[in-house]
Amino acid sequence: MNANKQNFGRVALIGIGLIGSSLARIIKRDGLADHIVVSARTEDSLNKALELGIADSVTLETAEAVKDADIVVICTPMGAYKSIIEAAAPALKKGAIVTDVGSVKGSALNDLGPHIPEGVHLIPAHPVAGTEHSGPEAGFAELFEDRWCILTPPPGADEGAIKTITDLWQATGANIEIMDAGHHDLVMAMTSHIPHLIAYTIVGTATDLENSLRDEVIKFSAGGFRDFTRIAASDPSMWRDVFLNNREAVLEMLQRFNEDLTAMQRAIRWGEADTLYELFERTREIRRGVIDAKQA
Amino acid sequence: MNANKQNFGRVALIGIGLIGSSLARIIKRDGLADHIVVSARTEDSLNKALELGIADSVTLETAEAVKDADIVVICTPMGAYKSIIEAAAPALKKGAIVTDVGSVKGSALNDLGPHIPEGVHLIPAHPVAGTEHSGPEAGFAELFEDRWCILTPPPGADEGAIKTITDLWQATGANIEIMDAGHHDLVMAMTSHIPHLIAYTIVGTATDLENSLRDEVIKFSAGGFRDFTRIAASDPSMWRDVFLNNREAVLEMLQRFNEDLTAMQRAIRWGEADTLYELFERTREIRRGVIDAKQA
Repeated sequence: MNANKQNFGRVALIGIGLIGSSLARIIKRDGLADHIVVSARTEDSLNKALELGIADSVTLETAEAVKDADIVVICTPMGAYKSIIEAAAPALKKGAIVTDVGSVKGSALNDLGPHIPEGVHLIPAHPVAGTEHSGPEAGFAELFEDRWCILTPPPGADEGAIKTITDLWQATGANIEIMDAGHHDLVMAMTSHIPHLIAYTIVGTATDLENSLRDEVIKFSAGGFRDFTRIAASDPSMWRDVFLNNREAVLEMLQRFNEDLTAMQRAIRWGEADTLYELFERTREIRRGVIDAKQA
Repeated sequence: MNANKQNFGRVALIGIGLIGSSLARIIKRDGLADHIVVSARTEDSLNKALELGIADSVTLETAEAVKDADIVVICTPMGAYKSIIEAAAPALKKGAIVTDVGSVKGSALNDLGPHIPEGVHLIPAHPVAGTEHSGPEAGFAELFEDRWCILTPPPGADEGAIKTITDLWQATGANIEIMDAGHHDLVMAMTSHIPHLIAYTIVGTATDLENSLRDEVIKFSAGGFRDFTRIAASDPSMWRDVFLNNREAVLEMLQRFNEDLTAMQRAIRWGEADTLYELFERTREIRRGVIDAKQA
């Protein structure tokens, strides 16, 4: 083993979709763990994990998966967190770290925190990366490179545990940011949740069109619509849970968006050319910012 | 010259942005014209066209550009159409074909039609392709490959002229569709104009956030927002004119979108998990359609 290489011991992945399987690929590729145990809801997912060579062992039982694990990474839709931690808690070993990859961190703390046993550490995390594909086969080892991974440790969290989860995500190529959970959820409402909600909605609007018109919308989608269809192909269970768990922040940002859209609607109705031009010019600067931040 | 190769004679390009310069590159690369004359609003654009080697001659005067031209392609924002055709009309030669590349076809017919002299043909066209970049340097010869180019000839248009413009766009690698102008505008409202309007609006909403939050929105844009910033970096003049010229269809589709977004908002507020899941599942099918139609 490379002297510089870290070893995270026994890692349990609960859920093996896009994010979980990408993380597993990296751990396998770089030999970062002694053993990867994968737990999932279906035999099918477990078999795929074995076929892909990204699990050393598999089990349908959460408690069995987390037994003896040094790090437990919950990679399921957020609606499953409560039942997972209830099943896992009695089996967690002293000194273990529980983390997750969910897109909402306030609810992760609320759902997991009360069930974490004495001597076990909770360090929620959110790798800000993804594609529209889901399932174990969709993962790839480069998914997190140069992306951000945000940790939201609860107040007073163990420094050693924070360092371990930082090291784990740095090993994937991600950059680490530590943030308050509530602030994270507000930022993500704007950068991720509202864009997804809007994309889902407009693609839904298109599916409700008269049949002939709908076929043409697909045919001529290269004019902008196809980018929305890509976003709106993301995992339905995951996104349902995001919106249910980040309700307040999403509704707040949605309200702002709605006001702005109404203003645009009015500008179009009344032919206010300058209002339109001024906004369209202003938004270019944000794009430059995204490019400068190397997130384009 | 290759025996199979077509020659479109003398081609005048009025405007040399992303679309015009891409078309010029193809005509040059494949030797499809005897001469390309480029007209633009600024010396700067004309100099760039010469530097890029995509113009044989340049002029600031529309009338001079269209004189003796066999095909005149208007590639400017649509707000300039009326003044361009007024300047061009007296100089157009008998048998010339006037076409354009604008995103709204009803207004193209309305703005250009009344000024077309007897014996000159008007065949409006819309290549459904683009990027967020603009200007003469932004063009590239592959832009139209496997994309659609929609022709909206007015009733009774000359068949020979339709064939010539069909041939021109087929030579770019585009597939041709002939459509009624009003129907085109309705389809594009949904596939292109509303997606752009929404992207501009949400990026605008983000620019209005408190400074610290705005910086973070840029930093963590990989969660979905960056796709919107790309769309919202498109040419402001062009898009202002699209919304002003396709007002009725845009407002109609926007109304439908608004109703659907309000329904989603309500589902989030009341925690209606099934409503959210059902929509998110349904929109995946549209994505499959886009992929099957090879427009992904």
